[in-house]
Amino acid sequence: MAFDKVKRSENYSEWYNQLVKNADLAEHSAVKGCMVIKPYGYAIWEKMQRQLDDMFKETGHSNAYFPLFVPKSLFEKEEKNAEGFAKECAVVTHYRLKANPDKPGTLMADPDSKLEEELVVRPTSEAIIWNTYKNWIQSYRDLPILINQWANVVRWEMRTRLFLRTAEFLWQEGHTAHASKEEALEETVRMLEVYAEFAQNFMAVPVIKGVKSENERFAGADDTYCIEGMMQDGKALQMGTSHFLGQNFAKAFDVKFQSKEGKLEYVWATSWGVSTRLMGALIMVHSDDEGLVLPPKLAPIHIVIVPVYRSDEDLATIKMAMDPQMQAWKKLGLTVKFDGRDTFKPGYKFAEWELKGVPVRLAVGMRDLESNTVEVFRRDTKEKTVVSMESVVDYAANLMNDIQESLYNRAKTFRDTRVYEANSWNEFVEIINVKEGFAMAHWDGTGETEEKIKELTKATIRCIPLDQPEEVGVCILSGKPSVKRVVFAKAY
Amino acid sequence: MAFDKVKRSENYSEWYNQLVKNADLAEHSAVKGCMVIKPYGYAIWEKMQRQLDDMFKETGHSNAYFPLFVPKSLFEKEEKNAEGFAKECAVVTHYRLKANPDKPGTLMADPDSKLEEELVVRPTSEAIIWNTYKNWIQSYRDLPILINQWANVVRWEMRTRLFLRTAEFLWQEGHTAHASKEEALEETVRMLEVYAEFAQNFMAVPVIKGVKSENERFAGADDTYCIEGMMQDGKALQMGTSHFLGQNFAKAFDVKFQSKEGKLEYVWATSWGVSTRLMGALIMVHSDDEGLVLPPKLAPIHIVIVPVYRSDEDLATIKMAMDPQMQAWKKLGLTVKFDGRDTFKPGYKFAEWELKGVPVRLAVGMRDLESNTVEVFRRDTKEKTVVSMESVVDYAANLMNDIQESLYNRAKTFRDTRVYEANSWNEFVEIINVKEGFAMAHWDGTGETEEKIKELTKATIRCIPLDQPEEVGVCILSGKPSVKRVVFAKAY
Repeated sequence: MAFDKVKRSENYSEWYNQLVKNADLAEHSAVKGCMVIKPYGYAIWEKMQRQLDDMFKETGHSNAYFPLFVPKSLFEKEEKNAEGFAKECAVVTHYRLKANPDKPGTLMADPDSKLEEELVVRPTSEAIIWNTYKNWIQSYRDLPILINQWANVVRWEMRTRLFLRTAEFLWQEGHTAHASKEEALEETVRMLEVYAEFAQNFMAVPVIKGVKSENERFAGADDTYCIEGMMQDGKALQMGTSHFLGQNFAKAFDVKFQSKEGKLEYVWATSWGVSTRLMGALIMVHSDDEGLVLPPKLAPIHIVIVPVYRSDEDLATIKMAMDPQMQAWKKLGLTVKFDGRDTFKPGYKFAEWELKGVPVRLAVGMRDLESNTVEVFRRDTKEKTVVSMESVVDYAANLMNDIQESLYNRAKTFRDTRVYEANSWNEFVEIINVKEGFAMAHWDGTGETEEKIKELTKATIRCIPLDQPEEVGVCILSGKPSVKRVVFAKAY
Repeated sequence: MAFDKVKRSENYSEWYNQLVKNADLAEHSAVKGCMVIKPYGYAIWEKMQRQLDDMFKETGHSNAYFPLFVPKSLFEKEEKNAEGFAKECAVVTHYRLKANPDKPGTLMADPDSKLEEELVVRPTSEAIIWNTYKNWIQSYRDLPILINQWANVVRWEMRTRLFLRTAEFLWQEGHTAHASKEEALEETVRMLEVYAEFAQNFMAVPVIKGVKSENERFAGADDTYCIEGMMQDGKALQMGTSHFLGQNFAKAFDVKFQSKEGKLEYVWATSWGVSTRLMGALIMVHSDDEGLVLPPKLAPIHIVIVPVYRSDEDLATIKMAMDPQMQAWKKLGLTVKFDGRDTFKPGYKFAEWELKGVPVRLAVGMRDLESNTVEVFRRDTKEKTVVSMESVVDYAANLMNDIQESLYNRAKTFRDTRVYEANSWNEFVEIINVKEGFAMAHWDGTGETEEKIKELTKATIRCIPLDQPEEVGVCILSGKPSVKRVVFAKAY
């Protein structure tokens, strides 16, 4: 296909940009920093949404919807949260446009419609939601509240990249309220596990589960749990976060409940979210120089059939011959596309479906019908296999499991071979800058050291891993004592 | 239950407000005119979304996502559209907050972050979408484009009512582009039919399909098709609209394509939408003085089982006894809730599930287990039937179809008996003000007459019905000639 094609190995960043564009996933819009998610990209996001939504419901959560706008006075209430997001808030100041008398044919914000109180376009919804929960919670009987919201949020970003960092993005945000600290902590970890399971079993992306350092914590949280994935350039991408909010929002919004023992206590809270950023992770982990590679569980199209024909009769014959197989796949829950377009040649179609990451492609010509065989191409390994027409239904269906598993294993091997222990500063710098991977290193636990390492290498602490054993050591930079290695990496 | 309870017959408007609140569907938020959709209300909306989404996909549409914000200069381009929505636009003027030096602890829009160009929060997305389509369309091969978006939109309303009219609401908006006028017109009507089918077969609400008069047309459309339902107070509610946009947006955004014949032509367009307003229609058409009545196809819970017990052992026995039935219903795709809460008495639970409109309720006590029977209550007619335990699975499952059909028939009979022909001005006024129904009346086709009738009676033309036969007559007000009756009514 006549596309710009930079190779991954040449310029990873440009390769990503081209892929997002060429595979018709998303594009920049006329609004600075905001993206248009195109139908093919959105179809993948819908698959993610549906799966996550099922998992949220299985763990007892319900969806609800809260306002897009947050009155400034509410936004201010939880100070750390407000401070953390103030610099990237879109602010609504007027509620009407009128004809501009100075420039006929144009409009202007009507000065008479200036709002008494500005409205912030939600960068996250803790403030508006806790102001609402206040009225919902009186007694322990009203708890827990387990609510999720699918929504758009706006965080004004100066440097944006499609899916990875955009001014407006789509996400889900869970907001739960609990009667005890233990219960809220359990919830925080439960949702982290849900995210990890989704990343690994559906996105086929291995992740490290951990806790953020204080510097990287969500503004307003007591603790931020996260899952971190490794992209093919060795950089980390934060794929989801689950926050233990303690009683911070309950105190800011004065949300108390009467406990079983009759005492009035502040409510405990969590919040957790993943966003369209996951699309970026999905693309960057599996794709190759030919384009997108999708794990079958998130592929909008599982199988594409490209007929190789000369006449309209041949096309009709091929289509009819493949119909029983298409019906059989449909019954198995697989989505099949028969690409009968007469405006493109088979070679073009092959390249296009490779670019779009369809897991399995079949090429079927008249000769195949005669020999009762069909050529099956799997996108992940690019292997072609000739299979008998009788066995192709099962063969392709089984390939879905193979591909799903194989993508995960490939990504895990890639990641595992790029996670290094750093035992000296020189080793550390080499891992970050030359080997381009994650450095497992001792750290003295201070924000100053973390900051200094970032200045020197651009690497940040991605997380303090949950399953890392304690181990006596000394900080890679300061030499002060440390009891655990943490994950350092450059990150998106 | 200890709720305020105004009867429908006493104060329909207040009855609606109380119902929305008491059934836990939605509530007002801290943001003027914006609502919080509570989990139970949202669950019903999700059912609507899923069904509509399936219907859109079956008719060849894909979902995508476009930015929340529209730069003012784009918003202005289609003049009529801009003029129509200018008075209700939320305007973003700044992209940052900073500490307010005059009021410590508070924030203010940072004057240094004033945007060069204001951003309008989308009241509808034609402008931003047609500005995008411009880059997607070169040739007839790029057409049609059949895209839908699920999104929030903002139209600043001064007088709001939950679900019916709110400053922010959720909706879907389809935006399609076509090579010919005929094709665009076909699409407009196709989507009107989809909406009508959804209203009738899923919401169990009969609707009149028609075309809006020029006064009531969507700003920027050549024609607006609509479906109109009748509420229990005899008022009309516009439930969905499908607009034939002609070439208006193509011309405003200069979107041309090369036809098969090689000519450069403007693209033809449609847009169509339904919103959370449908929740208002659903509530108002079927509910009664005991609360919500839901058609089974949109009910989040189909069957609730209320155990009547004295001891924990009894509760466990009843639950175990009902388990096979619950499994069987689940297999049939029905959602069943066993209400084992020990904090409420059966009578309270009965009232609560009636209030929430669950189609079928079972009351099961130890005596029922002994006699191997169970009492089945259907919400729509409030009939109780004692059924043998063996037959209850089929009985309740069949009731779903009965209730769905019966609700539609009830609503249709109600509506049909309140649609009157008005053949004189006196008759017209009586229908609108005393009989409280729809008046089928001749109209001279002018905006002036329409405006005058509205002033005199508050009735507006809901639509010019599609299936109304032509008939010679004279305008109800002006006495001028007319060839067709149109639907007049007071409306939400």
